[in-house]
Amino acid sequence: MGDLQTTVLQLLGIVGGVSVIALIFIVIMTRYVFKQELGSQEMQAIAAAIKEGAMAFLSRQYKTIGVLAIVVSVLLGFVTRGDDIFNWHTFVSFIAGALCSGIAGFIGMYVAVSANIRAAAGAKHSLNRSLTISFRGGAVTGLAVTTLSLIGVGGLFYIFGAYEGTEEAIKHAPLLIVGYGFGASFVALFAQLGGGIYTKAADVGADLVGKVEAGIPEDDPRNPAVVADLVGDNVGDCAGRGADLFESTAAENIGAMILGIALFPVFGVYGILFPLVARASGIVASIIGMFCVKTKENKDPMNALNVGYFVTTILCALFLIPITKYMLGGVGQFEGKVNYWNFYGCALIGLALSFAFVYITQYYTSINFRPVKEIAKASQTGPATNIISGIAVGLESTFAPVVVISAAIFSSYWLGKTSGLSELGFNGGLYGTAIATMGMLATCAYILAMDTFGPITDNAGGITEMSGAPEEVRVKTDRLDACGNTTKALTKGYAVGSAALATFLLFSAYLDEVKIALGKGAHEIFPVDIGKPEVFLGAFAGAMIVFLFSSTAIRAVGKAAQYVILEVRRQFNERPGIMDGTEKPDYGRCVDIVTKGALKEMVLPGLIVVAAPIAVGLLFGAESAAGFLMVATIAGVLMALFLNNGGGAWDNAKKFIELGNYGGKKSEAHKAGVVGDTVGDPFKDTAGPSLHVLIKLFSTITLVLASLFVSYGLIK
Amino acid sequence: MGDLQTTVLQLLGIVGGVSVIALIFIVIMTRYVFKQELGSQEMQAIAAAIKEGAMAFLSRQYKTIGVLAIVVSVLLGFVTRGDDIFNWHTFVSFIAGALCSGIAGFIGMYVAVSANIRAAAGAKHSLNRSLTISFRGGAVTGLAVTTLSLIGVGGLFYIFGAYEGTEEAIKHAPLLIVGYGFGASFVALFAQLGGGIYTKAADVGADLVGKVEAGIPEDDPRNPAVVADLVGDNVGDCAGRGADLFESTAAENIGAMILGIALFPVFGVYGILFPLVARASGIVASIIGMFCVKTKENKDPMNALNVGYFVTTILCALFLIPITKYMLGGVGQFEGKVNYWNFYGCALIGLALSFAFVYITQYYTSINFRPVKEIAKASQTGPATNIISGIAVGLESTFAPVVVISAAIFSSYWLGKTSGLSELGFNGGLYGTAIATMGMLATCAYILAMDTFGPITDNAGGITEMSGAPEEVRVKTDRLDACGNTTKALTKGYAVGSAALATFLLFSAYLDEVKIALGKGAHEIFPVDIGKPEVFLGAFAGAMIVFLFSSTAIRAVGKAAQYVILEVRRQFNERPGIMDGTEKPDYGRCVDIVTKGALKEMVLPGLIVVAAPIAVGLLFGAESAAGFLMVATIAGVLMALFLNNGGGAWDNAKKFIELGNYGGKKSEAHKAGVVGDTVGDPFKDTAGPSLHVLIKLFSTITLVLASLFVSYGLIK
Repeated sequence: MGDLQTTVLQLLGIVGGVSVIALIFIVIMTRYVFKQELGSQEMQAIAAAIKEGAMAFLSRQYKTIGVLAIVVSVLLGFVTRGDDIFNWHTFVSFIAGALCSGIAGFIGMYVAVSANIRAAAGAKHSLNRSLTISFRGGAVTGLAVTTLSLIGVGGLFYIFGAYEGTEEAIKHAPLLIVGYGFGASFVALFAQLGGGIYTKAADVGADLVGKVEAGIPEDDPRNPAVVADLVGDNVGDCAGRGADLFESTAAENIGAMILGIALFPVFGVYGILFPLVARASGIVASIIGMFCVKTKENKDPMNALNVGYFVTTILCALFLIPITKYMLGGVGQFEGKVNYWNFYGCALIGLALSFAFVYITQYYTSINFRPVKEIAKASQTGPATNIISGIAVGLESTFAPVVVISAAIFSSYWLGKTSGLSELGFNGGLYGTAIATMGMLATCAYILAMDTFGPITDNAGGITEMSGAPEEVRVKTDRLDACGNTTKALTKGYAVGSAALATFLLFSAYLDEVKIALGKGAHEIFPVDIGKPEVFLGAFAGAMIVFLFSSTAIRAVGKAAQYVILEVRRQFNERPGIMDGTEKPDYGRCVDIVTKGALKEMVLPGLIVVAAPIAVGLLFGAESAAGFLMVATIAGVLMALFLNNGGGAWDNAKKFIELGNYGGKKSEAHKAGVVGDTVGDPFKDTAGPSLHVLIKLFSTITLVLASLFVSYGLIK
Repeated sequence: MGDLQTTVLQLLGIVGGVSVIALIFIVIMTRYVFKQELGSQEMQAIAAAIKEGAMAFLSRQYKTIGVLAIVVSVLLGFVTRGDDIFNWHTFVSFIAGALCSGIAGFIGMYVAVSANIRAAAGAKHSLNRSLTISFRGGAVTGLAVTTLSLIGVGGLFYIFGAYEGTEEAIKHAPLLIVGYGFGASFVALFAQLGGGIYTKAADVGADLVGKVEAGIPEDDPRNPAVVADLVGDNVGDCAGRGADLFESTAAENIGAMILGIALFPVFGVYGILFPLVARASGIVASIIGMFCVKTKENKDPMNALNVGYFVTTILCALFLIPITKYMLGGVGQFEGKVNYWNFYGCALIGLALSFAFVYITQYYTSINFRPVKEIAKASQTGPATNIISGIAVGLESTFAPVVVISAAIFSSYWLGKTSGLSELGFNGGLYGTAIATMGMLATCAYILAMDTFGPITDNAGGITEMSGAPEEVRVKTDRLDACGNTTKALTKGYAVGSAALATFLLFSAYLDEVKIALGKGAHEIFPVDIGKPEVFLGAFAGAMIVFLFSSTAIRAVGKAAQYVILEVRRQFNERPGIMDGTEKPDYGRCVDIVTKGALKEMVLPGLIVVAAPIAVGLLFGAESAAGFLMVATIAGVLMALFLNNGGGAWDNAKKFIELGNYGGKKSEAHKAGVVGDTVGDPFKDTAGPSLHVLIKLFSTITLVLASLFVSYGLIK
């Protein structure tokens, strides 16, 4: 066993050790949740219906995705086969990525739909008990997603490279696992899209028939679609977002490892494995942060979550000092020639960027600031002005994120460039942006825990409401629910920011792949000249696909909601006893119908986005595909920000009016607010979040098929 | 006088001759309009109020624009001065562009607000009389805009180059008149933006207080804002769109002439002057087409307009055969080495592209097809589903235009490349796309006549309605008005398509300018590598500015509408006699208030978009500015299509319901349709059309400042 292999195995050992620790904590937290009491019979009945519906959706969704994934992976193995019969590496990585993402989603979701009722029951004792149950339930998703992503990448690296242990094998291994990212993003697209369609079709359908036609309140047990609505929160926010961030972390790891190959002379294998070690340290920091979340009866639970977030961030910042020092100081003849503090600065920029994104999202979607108030005020003159104002806010909300992303990319690029790497003839700038991306994703496990906290508390509130629990309990679950709404919104901001950075990274990795396929050296440049007609047209198509995809995703919600509306109307007609409480509605049928509808409607938009970059690459070649990728990313980030923030602002403008402003509930302003909220639903929970996944999917597809585009693109 | 100068003067003589003919026809058509009878006293009173309001707005708007233009032109003269004290060429061209655009707008508008009452009075006699008056009134705008644009470019070319007559002077002249395009787009931006804000603020304000609060019908003379609303149609659709297409034609001419410079060895001065001659032939074709517009009492007037359009298109296609043959066959040693039929093919592609755009726009916005019907159907479940459906339609409507633009660019590029030019070592492909752009803009005068026909018939309808004219007259003006709504929508489609092509052309011209500034030869490449961080950030900023600008433009309408609402409420309160008809409302004050409001609100978004590309160019250099320009163009075209088509579809979905579908007028579906229509107003008449101008403004700014970005950009 050579020195190189020893080093690699040591580093992988650290990563593996942390993974084992994380798995242990997943078990600990799961046991904690399951130990809690279950509450009343009524609660258990409702929770059982939610659980049954959620798991039924998930298993049917995974079946659909599984079939599509197997077809795609086999095709992939053939089209990327090169001189071999079949590309087993890409096939295996794709399947591994899809599988790990699925398992993480399954574990997270199972614990989440088990935690909701326990959080509701816990609220009878204390706010802190309920908070702890909800948050630890969410923490399981956070840890499962980040840890399985890490285990998958690390494991494949071991099998494809470290096992053989030669320099060549180790340097080649990251290129062999790009399929992992593709598999993960493939699952993420359908999970987010299907989940997003499900959750909003159920929500819109339940509201339109229940609230508007039948005049019964939200979460009323007489509404046959109410369980489907509660199921929706889990499949959208928990399973969907989990798959989204699984894919961000996998993409970031793989992209950064590929950039590390070019720097092998300077950093040795440390440059390649740095992303994994950094991620592992982030998981440790997150676990410690998770145990700091505690609240008192009269305190804002958001403060408790914030304390944990600060602790996690500070620990990440501390852990990264020795890691950058030890791993990015340069090896052999380059030892001491690289200023690792510059790279540490990049990591801090990434951490700061998370904060900036969270703050900007809060500004645009919270009731305390100008944008939401502006929409609420415009609601006084009716739904039209409410909508106009919300669209103006959503469009405006793209400004600040672009400025901070640009500043982060630019400054980390500059730090990387001035680290000493560039004087040695390497592209240090790109590695700087890669490290900023790692910094941003370091706190991922914690952020995801906060996110999944959202649907758990939302469900706990719904269960409390439906089971007719006493007022004092409801107040507690409502407070947690409000806090969960905030964390869900913030996570979307974080997700889109990290998707943008991860895609920039994958784009650089794509260019490296193309250069390798063209036989160009690491120092040579492969310019993506947008002045060439085919590149311009690729770019044009990329941006257009973002618009087209948003259209089909939004429309899919409308179609699936129609199924729900018809079913609820049918039940009200056929069972007149539902309205006076003498007959029980058939929740299961509604769940079933939304499930079928959502799965049916997700296929078309999903296939469009898988086919588009491949078509561009094969027709117009690798350079055009690069233009497609870049401009699709730009348009996708902007559109996602517009849809997420506009939707979030509408939601809270309605809540702001409900608090008694501009006439309060049942005023004309409130009616207008409800219209805005409904419009915003498919924006913020279906199309917007799917776009984060979309842009990463584009980059993993092009990365996997790079050499194909080089060889077979009609225009070279 | 050398041979070269003789040729130039001969060609300019043809262009000048056509211009004189066009001016004569402007006078003939104007005299025809003014000769017509004026109608009843009531009509005259209303028409006088509209005219007064429109001209007052225009003169105040021009004063504001004038001040801004003088400041900008002086600054421009200094910052682009190079080794001289002051760049008089750019200064003079800028002022000339601004002035010609203003004069064309003024003439067109004056005739339009004089034609409206005569068209109303003419409807008493026959449909054909009313149609002819409205269309010839519109034809004045069409001819004034295209002819003045041509005279300006031709005149400056004479002064800056042909007068001296040396080869060097002639080859340098097109570069000296880029300021003309900048001046024209500067005026166009503010004209379209200010006009767009005015028209929709008046419309939304009048509707919200009149229809919703006071419950009086549209165009009711008791509404104090009704005159402002009628004025708005003129300043938005006539003056705004006129300035928009003035700028498209100017930009296309200049961009194509610059590309012609590089081809001087092959085509001589013919390559440079081809755009002007082609434009002149288009004007002749349009004049003939205009005289073919005639209808019978029981025929659809749209058929009459279509006949004229077909005649114009066919004549353009015929005229271009000898022109391409004579001018693009190659000179000297290259004679016969270039296949001019290829270039003729490019021109036909451009003509076909106009048709495609008109058809696609019709598909998405007319009541006969799936999209509008889908929105109307969704209105049954309320305003929220109406909005969701409209947004889905708008986003979807980007697909087909991108496909046809891409096909047009690609095929014309290919035709240009295979014309023989590329074998001679020249970039024939780009010149091919330039000629496609000329083809598309050849019918511009006629299209613009159809467009301005819109506000004239709209006003004629309003005057008829307000003056209480007999039913039979109203039916006629209503039929013409419906036809005008269609032509207005189609022109927007045409405008965005031609803006996309013109910008692509200017982008190529920009790259040529940068190469010249860098001292590179015509055969060298200046790649715009979007893989470089600064280019990526420029591109990111470009797309973001499109979102931000749309937000400010939409919001500006809301703000200006608030002023109107307050004023109308005040008048209803202080003059209770208005509602029972015993007191007259103060129309003038409303007009005045919208004028002030619109002019105030247009400044911020206007300045943002002028400052943004300059900031990017100075901070990140010429390559980054190119990335900004390209991606802003892509995002701008897509956003404009989304806003224009979404808005148009909502408008007609409401009309479809009003025809008796889904419950007809006063049904719940109709209420939802009204909400969609109101939301669509600032989309389709303010933000959308301003975006066409925006992208051209970006390209003229960067073109003018290209050498500055090369010398002073912080990142080279």
